[in-house]
Amino acid sequence: MTMVRLIYTSQLSDNCGVPEVRSILKAARVNNQKIGVTGLLCYDPTHFMQWIEGERNIISRLYHSIAADPRHTNVVLLDYGEIFQREFAKWSMAYVNPGDVSQDIILRYCSSIELNPYSMSAEAARSFMLDIAQMKRSTLDSDI
Amino acid sequence: MTMVRLIYTSQLSDNCGVPEVRSILKAARVNNQKIGVTGLLCYDPTHFMQWIEGERNIISRLYHSIAADPRHTNVVLLDYGEIFQREFAKWSMAYVNPGDVSQDIILRYCSSIELNPYSMSAEAARSFMLDIAQMKRSTLDSDI
Amino acid sequence: MTMVRLIYTSQLSDNCGVPEVRSILKAARVNNQKIGVTGLLCYDPTHFMQWIEGERNIISRLYHSIAADPRHTNVVLLDYGEIFQREFAKWSMAYVNPGDVSQDIILRYCSSIELNPYSMSAEAARSFMLDIAQMKRSTLDSDI
Amino acid sequence: MTMVRLIYTSQLSDNCGVPEVRSILKAARVNNQKIGVTGLLCYDPTHFMQWIEGERNIISRLYHSIAADPRHTNVVLLDYGEIFQREFAKWSMAYVNPGDVSQDIILRYCSSIELNPYSMSAEAARSFMLDIAQMKRSTLDSDI
Amino acid sequence: MTMVRLIYTSQLSDNCGVPEVRSILKAARVNNQKIGVTGLLCYDPTHFMQWIEGERNIISRLYHSIAADPRHTNVVLLDYGEIFQREFAKWSMAYVNPGDVSQDIILRYCSSIELNPYSMSAEAARSFMLDIAQMKRSTLDSDI
Amino acid sequence: MTMVRLIYTSQLSDNCGVPEVRSILKAARVNNQKIGVTGLLCYDPTHFMQWIEGERNIISRLYHSIAADPRHTNVVLLDYGEIFQREFAKWSMAYVNPGDVSQDIILRYCSSIELNPYSMSAEAARSFMLDIAQMKRSTLDSDI
Amino acid sequence: MTMVRLIYTSQLSDNCGVPEVRSILKAARVNNQKIGVTGLLCYDPTHFMQWIEGERNIISRLYHSIAADPRHTNVVLLDYGEIFQREFAKWSMAYVNPGDVSQDIILRYCSSIELNPYSMSAEAARSFMLDIAQMKRSTLDSDI
Amino acid sequence: MTMVRLIYTSQLSDNCGVPEVRSILKAARVNNQKIGVTGLLCYDPTHFMQWIEGERNIISRLYHSIAADPRHTNVVLLDYGEIFQREFAKWSMAYVNPGDVSQDIILRYCSSIELNPYSMSAEAARSFMLDIAQMKRSTLDSDI
Amino acid sequence: MTMVRLIYTSQLSDNCGVPEVRSILKAARVNNQKIGVTGLLCYDPTHFMQWIEGERNIISRLYHSIAADPRHTNVVLLDYGEIFQREFAKWSMAYVNPGDVSQDIILRYCSSIELNPYSMSAEAARSFMLDIAQMKRSTLDSDI
Amino acid sequence: MTMVRLIYTSQLSDNCGVPEVRSILKAARVNNQKIGVTGLLCYDPTHFMQWIEGERNIISRLYHSIAADPRHTNVVLLDYGEIFQREFAKWSMAYVNPGDVSQDIILRYCSSIELNPYSMSAEAARSFMLDIAQMKRSTLDSDI
Ligand SMILES: Cc1cc2nc3c(=O)[nH]c(=O)nc-3n(C[C@H](O)[C@H](O)[C@H](O)COP(=O)(O)O)c2cc1C
Ligand SMILES: Cc1cc2nc3c(=O)[nH]c(=O)nc-3n(C[C@H](O)[C@H](O)[C@H](O)COP(=O)(O)O)c2cc1C
Ligand SMILES: Cc1cc2nc3c(=O)[nH]c(=O)nc-3n(C[C@H](O)[C@H](O)[C@H](O)COP(=O)(O)O)c2cc1C
Ligand SMILES: Cc1cc2nc3c(=O)[nH]c(=O)nc-3n(C[C@H](O)[C@H](O)[C@H](O)COP(=O)(O)O)c2cc1C
Ligand SMILES: Cc1cc2nc3c(=O)[nH]c(=O)nc-3n(C[C@H](O)[C@H](O)[C@H](O)COP(=O)(O)O)c2cc1C
Ligand SMILES: Cc1cc2nc3c(=O)[nH]c(=O)nc-3n(C[C@H](O)[C@H](O)[C@H](O)COP(=O)(O)O)c2cc1C
Ligand SMILES: Cc1cc2nc3c(=O)[nH]c(=O)nc-3n(C[C@H](O)[C@H](O)[C@H](O)COP(=O)(O)O)c2cc1C
Ligand SMILES: Cc1cc2nc3c(=O)[nH]c(=O)nc-3n(C[C@H](O)[C@H](O)[C@H](O)COP(=O)(O)O)c2cc1C
Ligand SMILES: Cc1cc2nc3c(=O)[nH]c(=O)nc-3n(C[C@H](O)[C@H](O)[C@H](O)COP(=O)(O)O)c2cc1C
Ligand SMILES: Cc1cc2nc3c(=O)[nH]c(=O)nc-3n(C[C@H](O)[C@H](O)[C@H](O)COP(=O)(O)O)c2cc1C
Repeated sequence: MTMVRLIYTSQLSDNCGVPEVRSILKAARVNNQKIGVTGLLCYDPTHFMQWIEGERNIISRLYHSIAADPRHTNVVLLDYGEIFQREFAKWSMAYVNPGDVSQDIILRYCSSIELNPYSMSAEAARSFMLDIAQMKRSTLDSDI
Repeated sequence: MTMVRLIYTSQLSDNCGVPEVRSILKAARVNNQKIGVTGLLCYDPTHFMQWIEGERNIISRLYHSIAADPRHTNVVLLDYGEIFQREFAKWSMAYVNPGDVSQDIILRYCSSIELNPYSMSAEAARSFMLDIAQMKRSTLDSDI
Repeated sequence: MTMVRLIYTSQLSDNCGVPEVRSILKAARVNNQKIGVTGLLCYDPTHFMQWIEGERNIISRLYHSIAADPRHTNVVLLDYGEIFQREFAKWSMAYVNPGDVSQDIILRYCSSIELNPYSMSAEAARSFMLDIAQMKRSTLDSDI
Repeated sequence: MTMVRLIYTSQLSDNCGVPEVRSILKAARVNNQKIGVTGLLCYDPTHFMQWIEGERNIISRLYHSIAADPRHTNVVLLDYGEIFQREFAKWSMAYVNPGDVSQDIILRYCSSIELNPYSMSAEAARSFMLDIAQMKRSTLDSDI
Repeated sequence: MTMVRLIYTSQLSDNCGVPEVRSILKAARVNNQKIGVTGLLCYDPTHFMQWIEGERNIISRLYHSIAADPRHTNVVLLDYGEIFQREFAKWSMAYVNPGDVSQDIILRYCSSIELNPYSMSAEAARSFMLDIAQMKRSTLDSDI
Repeated sequence: MTMVRLIYTSQLSDNCGVPEVRSILKAARVNNQKIGVTGLLCYDPTHFMQWIEGERNIISRLYHSIAADPRHTNVVLLDYGEIFQREFAKWSMAYVNPGDVSQDIILRYCSSIELNPYSMSAEAARSFMLDIAQMKRSTLDSDI
Repeated sequence: MTMVRLIYTSQLSDNCGVPEVRSILKAARVNNQKIGVTGLLCYDPTHFMQWIEGERNIISRLYHSIAADPRHTNVVLLDYGEIFQREFAKWSMAYVNPGDVSQDIILRYCSSIELNPYSMSAEAARSFMLDIAQMKRSTLDSDI
Repeated sequence: MTMVRLIYTSQLSDNCGVPEVRSILKAARVNNQKIGVTGLLCYDPTHFMQWIEGERNIISRLYHSIAADPRHTNVVLLDYGEIFQREFAKWSMAYVNPGDVSQDIILRYCSSIELNPYSMSAEAARSFMLDIAQMKRSTLDSDI
Repeated sequence: MTMVRLIYTSQLSDNCGVPEVRSILKAARVNNQKIGVTGLLCYDPTHFMQWIEGERNIISRLYHSIAADPRHTNVVLLDYGEIFQREFAKWSMAYVNPGDVSQDIILRYCSSIELNPYSMSAEAARSFMLDIAQMKRSTLDSDI
Repeated sequence: MTMVRLIYTSQLSDNCGVPEVRSILKAARVNNQKIGVTGLLCYDPTHFMQWIEGERNIISRLYHSIAADPRHTNVVLLDYGEIFQREFAKWSMAYVNPGDVSQDIILRYCSSIELNPYSMSAEAARSFMLDIAQMKRSTLDSDI
């Protein structure tokens, strides 16, 4: 078995609002627990940014399924690599709205205070998501 | 702009034989030249293994399209990363049947003389494809 | 003298249950103290995973004897190397059921919450056993 | 799949002479080709020293079988580790009598001109076998 | 998008005094917030020294505009480089008079207690501005 | 004295054609020789890309003058840093049209065969200009 | 002047008991203070292990004198090297019986709980003596 | 500007006693403040050892003047190098008699408890003076 | 013994012309051979630049004597450090006029084609003198 | 087994001349071959300098015996360390008079053209002996 980490970003489709995100998250948690995937989903009214980690074949299959999901578009792979240890072993899919955390954290990695993950390098994406997780550690598992 | 390299492997679908591969390759070369993608496609009767490199958004879009192509299945992402220089700038899509090169080269990275790319690490996949390219350098652009 | 560390995994044979494990452990502690071997044995209803460290000739002899023991099967060597310092000098054979510790710790290294040591790299195996030991430090020497 | 390299040494049993070694080698080559194992066997009237490389589960199984073989004794594991590329892809089991090569090469790693692999560190064992192979490259596949 | 850091130094023009600096700073903060630039401006009666960070195209445009500003002369670029994280995400343009902080901090990087940024290497300039910022952290955003 | 290297890119203004470039180059060579600047200018019908190296104050002054030159627009700084040795000591201002060299060399660093220096990282810009220089070494000083 | 560290081990001669060790230590301290030597002497009923540090010529002369001392035999040099700082500047010759400290510390570096310094590498010897010193820091200068 | 650190040692001339050292120090402090030099002067009845840091030309001029000063002889340069930050920005010339601090600190770097700076390497000299400064930090600026 | 390398630069005094340089060189070679000093002297009508290497005490004494020599002024120390091997063991004092070699080599390290060693960093000075020596290797020992 | 390298230097006793050195060498070769020691002996009318390599216990015993040999005095240990490969496997005891080779080679490591091994660091001693061996490779085994 090879374990990998994959980070991508995308744009919410027009018809994808809070109820749809709730439902994605709910289903994702149930499914991820079954297939041994853990991770973190960031979202704001415009973008998704997701870190998924697990067995290599499973991550590929899940990623292809996510990439084809009509609830978002312009899916772009930001980072991918072999790991020997997960970062988010405790969360089947944690959730955070970066804007809820602090505007600084976005400006630290983006050209303005609006989250623009399409402009991030692999290193910035990884570092941004770990910063976000660090900040919300306590409240992360609360429902949306 | 960010330039990336992506390597995946997959299995030929039952109805995918030499004529289909010829046609994939022909179309790929035409399209890749238009979208600025270069790379190398290995194939034997059972597996594909492909290295594509180009602009990040374009590679993601192409990869999602390839991953959904019914002419192969079980697509698994092996390696992905930012580059500042292409390896295959000369080839819109070079082509090689590793078995035509030498059995050693397969055994060097696999448990038997049958190519098994699903068993390769990112490092092995990268190194294998560069070895293959090195060997065929002269004959690579010949038609299939 | 050369000192080495050896980690392997295996599957409990059908007729190997709690009483057999108790007896293995009891005998191992007596023998290891005599031959200067220290280490850690993890086990769950399905797998063994063991770290043994000591003089090189003695570790080879012990490992061959363990590998031939009918109380387990499919013994696979995960990690081996020269050391100049032991990690478990205090324990002739510590014992821990990883499931007793926390499910996270398993998921951190495996594709699901079931321990699957056959999927671990040498680095993951080493890191997993040190994590386990760290967590149970206080209660490790308690009888089974 | 994980690929590994394993080096061990041992002493020929009293009843193990040239005919037995011939027969080991002949059978090994047939079997190794089937199971995807490659490597190098050194031997002199007293010692064996062998490098085997291949898929991790297969190498463990083969090693346990070799360790239990009555044709030699005092089997001691010298080196073991994950690799992403084989060193001996061309040889199902190359063969060399180090004394045939040059006495220097033995003295370079041992305290006297008699081969004493039990005194070698992992690094010395690896370096010695690569030196030996380098020297005999041309004549290595000749029969014994 | 590429994010960069740029540090330059310059000399105040004869007709540039406290009121002019106040006005530069006020306008800079308004504009920088719009264009996503953050940073730190040091000044004493003789010199400016400024760290600006943001999107690459924007930083170039701003820098050319600053370099052509008649309120200072002898603009010299000290340091420039790609970053994946800002240092001053919290400040649209922080402000500090190094002499207010401590004379040591100037002498640490200059040949005398008078600030002489033209004598600083890129490394010294970077290190000096981070030291200054560190010291004033609490009072930095106060108006001039 | 501090010696630096500076690389920028820009777009030719509408009224800037071959005669204007000739005249820039001619004047630049005369001036650079006087002020101790050396370097390389690439250009195609759309872009300039220039490497200048020399004393730090002089390079800043020259760069500000170039950045304000109406014969090009959208000047963007790509790379800047201290050096202790020049790369182009032999040329007051070498000149090369990358398209004259080979299309590969552009595709190696860009998303298509059209030169797009705005998409290059500092590392890519540096590496591209050294590659170009390497290729034209022999013909570089020929007049345009 | 060159300062060096030297570590050796040896076996107590038959007629060397506690009174002799007391007398060695007493004389050593007086002499070492005169010649600027500092260090640590470990001993148990069977072995000596000593770290001496000081000026290179003096250490050589002292070592030859110690090596020829009939109160011990089988003197073997374990570690030697140039230093620019002493480890034991406070002790003309500290003294410790490792068995008094803890059995773990011996087992950490040896194959059994009996101290066997002949089996230690240079790195193990150095690390063992620093561990011992660390533990006894407070009580080290007490008389024997 | 280039900033450098210079360390030398010397012997007090016969007619150089406490009053002369007082006067050197007093004049040095006045002068160093004017020329932007900072540092540390160690002395005992026999030796001087001094660390001076500042602008390169100034340090050379000052060093030549010190080297020619008849109040000491046998001036030997121990260490010299470019720095981008001073170590002693707070002191125009701190002063310390190492013997006042602790004999250990001398023995740590010398063959006996008498300070012998002529025997020190550049690394030892640097480390010794920083140790000394560390210890006396609080009392360093007190008059002699 | 400690061996060191020292590089300085200076300006020829008004009354120091070719005959004086000849005489310096002639005397230097005789003296250096006696005191075990080797090196390289560069000079042009304006500057000296000299690399001397040998025993530490001797180099200090010689340097102080050179620094006080009225035939040049503004002596500035550029580089100094411990070595374990000389670079110029073959030459008691080689001699080269950099302008005789090639103007490039000067421009490579200076802001113009006039040698300006006062502007060089330690690294540039070292590298420049080794480049010069490399070029003249064959003709270096010829008389002036 | 541990293999080590040991380098020492010493002075020839008054009554030790060419015949004595011949006899040392002759006996050394016979003995070393028996005990598995190899190496290099340099000598000039004043000094010995010897590199011996072999099994650790044997090297210690031999060194103590050499150190006590009245044919030389002032034996000083210069370098010692664990090796996994010999440098002089071909020579039971090679022999070279450095003065016969070239005066440069001595001056490269010493303050004058007279060999002074007491002034060498461990690194210089090792490098000097390898240089010497390199030069004489062809003629080294010739009798004295
Ligand atoms: C932004 C986003 C994130 C998603 N994350 C997950 C996830 O972590 N796990 C998951 O099972 N499905 C996730 N999905 C849903 C999948 O796209 C898909 O609907 C789900 O895997 C079911 O796929 P299937 O119908 O092909 O089995 C996500 C969808 C979106 C749009
Ligand atoms: C193994 C394999 C490799 C392929 N490689 C490429 C390629 O390099 N470039 C490309 O344009 N299409 C490639 N294709 C074809 C794509 O899957 C897809 O058919 C093509 O991009 C047209 O996609 P579209 O119909 O979504 O535009 C490949 C298909 C397969 C099965
Ligand atoms: C999972 C497992 C772990 C074992 N660990 C040890 C051990 O640490 N020490 C030990 O002496 N025997 C251990 N044994 C028992 C050995 O396999 C063997 O029974 C024992 O060494 C006696 O071997 P012998 O009969 O060849 O002397 C273990 C057995 C199993 C199945
Ligand atoms: C020194 C030595 C080396 C051996 N090397 C191999 C080998 O490389 N491959 C192999 O299949 N068997 C090798 N064997 C033989 C095995 O020990 C064993 O006989 C063989 O794998 C058949 O095992 P099995 O009867 O358990 O199937 C070797 C035996 C010895 C004594
Ligand atoms: C020392 C100094 C620092 C400045 N810093 C900034 C700044 O951070 N942001 C900014 O927008 N303008 C800054 N300016 C003002 C610019 O030079 C310029 O006036 C401003 O960008 C408006 O330019 P424009 O008139 O070309 O739009 C600064 C000017 C000076 C003299
Ligand atoms: C693309 C480009 C490159 C240039 N390169 C140089 C150069 O290398 N050296 C130079 O002196 N001027 C160069 N110039 C011209 C300067 O912009 C400017 O005209 C020249 O330095 C005269 O400036 P001044 O009128 O401010 O003195 C270049 C101009 C352009 C558009
Ligand atoms: C284990 C051991 C350790 C010793 N350590 C020292 C020591 O640290 N310093 C010392 O002066 N003598 C030490 N000695 C004593 C010397 O061997 C020798 O007796 C002493 O240096 C007097 O030597 P001399 O008679 O040749 O002058 C030690 C002896 C033994 C057996
Ligand atoms: C040990 C020692 C240390 C000295 N340190 C300094 C110093 O740090 N600064 C200083 O200006 N002079 C120092 N001096 C004094 C100089 O040698 C010299 O007297 C002083 O710079 C005045 O030189 P001038 O007469 O050439 O101007 C020191 C002298 C000695 C003997
Ligand atoms: C540029 C220059 C380089 C010199 N190089 C050396 C040299 O390498 N060796 C030397 O002995 N003297 C050299 N000298 C001469 C010394 O400055 C001094 O005259 C010589 O060492 C005699 O010094 P003394 O009269 O103090 O003994 C050099 C002088 C100058 C101006
Ligand atoms: C400079 C020198 C080098 C020596 N080298 C060796 C050597 O390499 N091997 C050796 O056996 N004896 C060598 N010897 C001789 C030993 O000192 C000693 O005489 C020899 O080992 C016999 O020792 P034993 O009488 O204690 O057995 C050397 C002696 C000297 C003076």
